[in-house]
Amino acid sequence: MIIVMQGNATEQDIEDVVKRVEKFGYAAKVLSGELRTVIAALGDARDKERLQSLESLNHVESVMPILKPYKLCSREVRAEKTIIDVNGVKIGGKKLVVMAGPCSVESQEQLTETGNSVKKAGAEILRGGAFKPRTSPYSFQGMEEEGLKLLKEVSEATGMPFVTEVMNPREVELVHRYADIIQIGARNVQNFSLLKEVGKMEKPILLKRGLATTIDEWLMSAEYILSEGNDKVILCERGIRTFEKATRNTLDLSAIPVVKEKSHLPVIVDPSHGTGYWQYVETMSLAAVAAGADGLMIEVHWKPEEAFSDGPQSLKPEKFAALMDKVRKVAESVGREA
Amino acid sequence: MIIVMQGNATEQDIEDVVKRVEKFGYAAKVLSGELRTVIAALGDARDKERLQSLESLNHVESVMPILKPYKLCSREVRAEKTIIDVNGVKIGGKKLVVMAGPCSVESQEQLTETGNSVKKAGAEILRGGAFKPRTSPYSFQGMEEEGLKLLKEVSEATGMPFVTEVMNPREVELVHRYADIIQIGARNVQNFSLLKEVGKMEKPILLKRGLATTIDEWLMSAEYILSEGNDKVILCERGIRTFEKATRNTLDLSAIPVVKEKSHLPVIVDPSHGTGYWQYVETMSLAAVAAGADGLMIEVHWKPEEAFSDGPQSLKPEKFAALMDKVRKVAESVGREA
Amino acid sequence: MIIVMQGNATEQDIEDVVKRVEKFGYAAKVLSGELRTVIAALGDARDKERLQSLESLNHVESVMPILKPYKLCSREVRAEKTIIDVNGVKIGGKKLVVMAGPCSVESQEQLTETGNSVKKAGAEILRGGAFKPRTSPYSFQGMEEEGLKLLKEVSEATGMPFVTEVMNPREVELVHRYADIIQIGARNVQNFSLLKEVGKMEKPILLKRGLATTIDEWLMSAEYILSEGNDKVILCERGIRTFEKATRNTLDLSAIPVVKEKSHLPVIVDPSHGTGYWQYVETMSLAAVAAGADGLMIEVHWKPEEAFSDGPQSLKPEKFAALMDKVRKVAESVGREA
Amino acid sequence: MIIVMQGNATEQDIEDVVKRVEKFGYAAKVLSGELRTVIAALGDARDKERLQSLESLNHVESVMPILKPYKLCSREVRAEKTIIDVNGVKIGGKKLVVMAGPCSVESQEQLTETGNSVKKAGAEILRGGAFKPRTSPYSFQGMEEEGLKLLKEVSEATGMPFVTEVMNPREVELVHRYADIIQIGARNVQNFSLLKEVGKMEKPILLKRGLATTIDEWLMSAEYILSEGNDKVILCERGIRTFEKATRNTLDLSAIPVVKEKSHLPVIVDPSHGTGYWQYVETMSLAAVAAGADGLMIEVHWKPEEAFSDGPQSLKPEKFAALMDKVRKVAESVGREA
Repeated sequence: MIIVMQGNATEQDIEDVVKRVEKFGYAAKVLSGELRTVIAALGDARDKERLQSLESLNHVESVMPILKPYKLCSREVRAEKTIIDVNGVKIGGKKLVVMAGPCSVESQEQLTETGNSVKKAGAEILRGGAFKPRTSPYSFQGMEEEGLKLLKEVSEATGMPFVTEVMNPREVELVHRYADIIQIGARNVQNFSLLKEVGKMEKPILLKRGLATTIDEWLMSAEYILSEGNDKVILCERGIRTFEKATRNTLDLSAIPVVKEKSHLPVIVDPSHGTGYWQYVETMSLAAVAAGADGLMIEVHWKPEEAFSDGPQSLKPEKFAALMDKVRKVAESVGREA
Repeated sequence: MIIVMQGNATEQDIEDVVKRVEKFGYAAKVLSGELRTVIAALGDARDKERLQSLESLNHVESVMPILKPYKLCSREVRAEKTIIDVNGVKIGGKKLVVMAGPCSVESQEQLTETGNSVKKAGAEILRGGAFKPRTSPYSFQGMEEEGLKLLKEVSEATGMPFVTEVMNPREVELVHRYADIIQIGARNVQNFSLLKEVGKMEKPILLKRGLATTIDEWLMSAEYILSEGNDKVILCERGIRTFEKATRNTLDLSAIPVVKEKSHLPVIVDPSHGTGYWQYVETMSLAAVAAGADGLMIEVHWKPEEAFSDGPQSLKPEKFAALMDKVRKVAESVGREA
Repeated sequence: MIIVMQGNATEQDIEDVVKRVEKFGYAAKVLSGELRTVIAALGDARDKERLQSLESLNHVESVMPILKPYKLCSREVRAEKTIIDVNGVKIGGKKLVVMAGPCSVESQEQLTETGNSVKKAGAEILRGGAFKPRTSPYSFQGMEEEGLKLLKEVSEATGMPFVTEVMNPREVELVHRYADIIQIGARNVQNFSLLKEVGKMEKPILLKRGLATTIDEWLMSAEYILSEGNDKVILCERGIRTFEKATRNTLDLSAIPVVKEKSHLPVIVDPSHGTGYWQYVETMSLAAVAAGADGLMIEVHWKPEEAFSDGPQSLKPEKFAALMDKVRKVAESVGREA
Repeated sequence: MIIVMQGNATEQDIEDVVKRVEKFGYAAKVLSGELRTVIAALGDARDKERLQSLESLNHVESVMPILKPYKLCSREVRAEKTIIDVNGVKIGGKKLVVMAGPCSVESQEQLTETGNSVKKAGAEILRGGAFKPRTSPYSFQGMEEEGLKLLKEVSEATGMPFVTEVMNPREVELVHRYADIIQIGARNVQNFSLLKEVGKMEKPILLKRGLATTIDEWLMSAEYILSEGNDKVILCERGIRTFEKATRNTLDLSAIPVVKEKSHLPVIVDPSHGTGYWQYVETMSLAAVAAGADGLMIEVHWKPEEAFSDGPQSLKPEKFAALMDKVRKVAESVGREA
């Protein structure tokens, strides 16, 4: 940490800060500049937030952190990229992994038809929501365990592992019993109770970025899971909230190179939520692949205009198949496979 | 809902939309303009989101909602303001209610000293965190049940009811047993499992606005609680996330008149999280009162520079007392009491 | 500046940075921590941006500024508050100054009626746009010099000085000939050519904050004007652009205490653009006064429903008069006058 | 326009709105729903903003536009894509156009060396700033006409046309005399005086998106230029301002498919400003190409660590050459050339 004193700080103020820094267990070095005195607190900042409280002292202008707060998910702790194996499907390797399926599980027919078509087009993981986080209590809340059973059934019939969301710590065990990958949704990215709970599970966790989550905070949420013992975390960029309303969210593809520089965890992209309109999904899928994403998560529905949720952003099966062809070409052009 | 067709939509496209609108149970009226045809779907939009899915049809340009999605918390359902009684302290009436105390409960001494001082200065509700949502898993996570016991003890000693946060549905019953008001934090504003759970409780719920939550979404989260049967919801504006970093968040005081126009629920303001710096807390408290807030929630710590969390935004007891004097004057100037 | 080296930086990398820092004319001090080496560049950072370019060197993690970039508008250069005299009306003193009038000058009748009514209610400065920055080239662009003449006429008839916007460096002299205060609009806050031009003028400049302008950048724009010799700058907070759409902009009232801490310049608030709806203007005016604003700028129109621009956010004269009564009470409650 | 009445609007209120709508020259159709009455104002909305003012009437809930405000730059007016010819270099066709060079022109040697290297790597347009918009008045403001001369010289020596920014209407003629493409920077995207002035020129205009400009507003700024008679506008996405600070801006690549759907104008991407760090420029260039960009604008500097501005985001010539090789592969994979 670097502690910057105000221009009018006295010797006494500076000494006071030095003493407190040392009391917290750090070495303190004082640097006197022409206009400001700066105090460096040296040491591994396990207790960083307590140093931050020094900002409330008289004549302290600011306290600036030097080290990133995450450890286990950082490249400094593990230089090589993590590859996660989901029943034989490897996420984070040379081959991109595409996850596809409907927003919500609605019926056996819907899931079977959609599942078969995405499998045929080249998807390797089935997606579908059984517990749905809906803005309105009056909206369809999901088929719950019945939905999990349908997912299991179609997963077994097609040979694709499946990913589905969990929202409630009470339901983690239930979802874990059925799912191959457990999804933490954007609205729960800082639901720390839930993060701790899935951190104790064995199956891989797909952690979506939140609407207002910085990349550093997102990695800290991954750190919660890793610090509980589960190191199989897949990050998923799905757009952030900005002033722009031509798209549902603003898909932040620059998060891919940033995450890859800082962390060893694989990162995939969800262009369906990222854009909110099926017209833009193909283009942004290709862009995500060129940007180095390790995979894609795409909403496909056999009849989008009748979908219980997220119809406008769902692709029809034939559009998804066309997309997969293009994804393969772009993947190859950047030295990957799909 | 208003469905706007693209300029090149055919008679056939329009008929298709009309049929689907009617199939969903609405009356459809077609309006042909010079450049666009517009279809109005008339009827109470319980199933609004399914109408939204029509956006994925050919030649539909957009689907625009007419009605607000919330009902129980709206002024249309209940015109007069809701007043919530917490052991005799009335929130939402003429008198402003100030909630004060430390960010985290850290020790008996800390809580007792701080509690006594805020009581003396005029606070009516004690605040303090026992379960703490922390960005880092390595930060202090709260004293948990031990913290609840200390809160109960100081609450009884001072005669102030207390408010404390719950993060996990599994802990709702435990917190409900101790607390007088249950707080849902900003990061859990769309944790729908938790909202449903506290909606089944009897005690009042303080619902903070999230960092990226629109006012409409915030009211929909309140609607979750009301729709489960608990109509004692206190809204709390605590700043939203923007590009500006001179303050920790951007306190959106205009949310107060907007909420009051749309909803009958009381709304208070947390200028501590809203600004992130104790220097700005007094000013923004006064502004909140002038803007019509029904109360304030303020972090006070007997030794901010040693706080386990949020030291930079915590007021010392004497600064809090000075603030209370000014709050009373501004309250009076807008026809309120404090 | 503090230069943070990456964890794997070598002695050679560090030496290279030190040499470059010294070449730019700073003293360099090296601090070796457990995990990072930090180099402090000491000296007045006139050439700060060139130091920032060191970030592109191998093994440099980041370059962090210590000093704020503004000087002339800072409290360090001038501790006491600046008071600006506009033909006897003092801005920045104990008495709040209210500027009021229509968004656009539309006709003599409109301006005269509106001007008389705001004067009667207690406004001291007349506002009105003659050159209008409009998002659409097809919208009313203002009455131009004809509008300036009407403003002058009503200004003389009522005895109120007037403020009006200039958009084009070519028109600065013309506007300066008529106006008492020259306004730089939100969209031109970083129009540096225009800032330099008005910096050479004698009359006071009202500088609005931009939609995406940080407080630091806003003060740097003021610095442009001051550095050209014109030290009569009035800052005007008018809302920033965020994800929230219930209001036209998000009025950032915390900018008031932040600006007052950092700068000696007076700061006023425009709640009309800040909220975009007349219903919220009164409330946010009172909040601005409680937050310490030195004045208000409010759009008033004799017939808002027929306004050429900004009708929805314009107050009728009788609503403005009621607002002024309340403003006076709140001003008094915080030790000011209005 | 759709005018939504409040639930408690009377027959009288509705009639009043209808009369005003008709007075503005529109046909009015009234639709009475269960909970709301809606009035459609039919006709080409040249005077849309005056309709918006009806929002200030009693019992009007909201006024919602149906038509997009831009015309000349829309696909409805011109279905086929615009291709702009700059001395033989075609922008908007099958072949991508890469513009490269330093942020600022600093010296003959710097520009010659950098210009030669980008030409050799495959750039077709030279970029370089002679008039620099700098946040601080104390920063390097550009070499002005001297810089234009150096650009002309290197442009002629290499055979690459050049693009450079103009900031002041007074300097439009001067810059137009030298430059092949005139750039309007992000901070001037709503400098309407400047837009009108360059709209009267003959040479192509490169119009950057602003930090807080919605896509609709950006297209309206293009509309200003087109409506003055200059239809050679190249749009340039360069990142918007969000809460995320890991990158300098958030590059909004979804703007590419959105713009292409709505407008016939070519759109290119500036990943240098978009990310702010050279490490991310290559990746985001590839993503932009996959997303359908018609070109790229990239900052290259022979010695980034000594750059007068934007060093951290400038590529060294050899890194730029490597990027060009990859760009060609991705372009081919999406059916383009580079």
